[in-house]
Amino acid sequence: MNRTPSRIVLAVATCATLVTGAAQAQLKPEDEIRYRQSVMNVMGRAMGPMGAMAQGKAPFNAALAQKNAGLVDSLIALPFSSYGPGTDKGAPTKADPKIWSDAPGFKQASEVAQKAAAQLLAASKAGDEAKFKAAFGEIGKACKSCHDNFRTKEFRN
Amino acid sequence: MNRTPSRIVLAVATCATLVTGAAQAQLKPEDEIRYRQSVMNVMGRAMGPMGAMAQGKAPFNAALAQKNAGLVDSLIALPFSSYGPGTDKGAPTKADPKIWSDAPGFKQASEVAQKAAAQLLAASKAGDEAKFKAAFGEIGKACKSCHDNFRTKEFRN
Repeated sequence: MNRTPSRIVLAVATCATLVTGAAQAQLKPEDEIRYRQSVMNVMGRAMGPMGAMAQGKAPFNAALAQKNAGLVDSLIALPFSSYGPGTDKGAPTKADPKIWSDAPGFKQASEVAQKAAAQLLAASKAGDEAKFKAAFGEIGKACKSCHDNFRTKEFRN
Repeated sequence: MNRTPSRIVLAVATCATLVTGAAQAQLKPEDEIRYRQSVMNVMGRAMGPMGAMAQGKAPFNAALAQKNAGLVDSLIALPFSSYGPGTDKGAPTKADPKIWSDAPGFKQASEVAQKAAAQLLAASKAGDEAKFKAAFGEIGKACKSCHDNFRTKEFRN
């Protein structure tokens, strides 16, 4: 295929129509809320097979652990830049107002989760089942702590 | 903190409440649709800063390119296992019925996209701006082609 500059520009422009993101100066609150929820959804699914292994419901599979721990590690920091001013409402969300009233506490919780994800990935790369299970327990606690403190039980607008 | 087995089990069980995913034998169509859309949303945002660099609207930054290309490469295969039988409806979706009536065509399109993502990551890792721009053009074409052929313009239930 003859790839002319105009073709490249067309392809780039087409992809840009998908983009709700960082290249735009102003992100709408509903886009930030949807993005946070999207990342959490993808991470939640990656936790599934790791949870089964950690609970002994599935045999430990180092490659599967590493793949999913890698995904979680790549994703876990992403939502935390999408809780900017004004993103506490605009679409149904479970983000607790404490996220904004206790910004230092939320930042600390996010850092605990990010550290736990890095440790889970390290344990998965080492292929060490006992370390993996311990690290999964730690990230589970980080999830629970952040959700207990900074997530409401029901959606609100 | 005293980490007893029961604490670990609690943390794992808590995390499992987040999980909509692969550990469950039966996934609801609406969960599959939401998951596909979540992955696309996260990928779309990762495309943003790369699109700006590819279009010359931002200076080339190899680290930024690598981070975002890595995300896209990690994510791009994920949606394609969530178009199983019965997931053509159940929640608002733009998934075109051709996904199911032309499964080989859809599979081929998914493989083109996955290959393009791998090449974009390789170009980003090489830190080569010209290769990055060419590879971004290729993945842009892969996005466009798949969306033109397998995505409807409007949501449908």
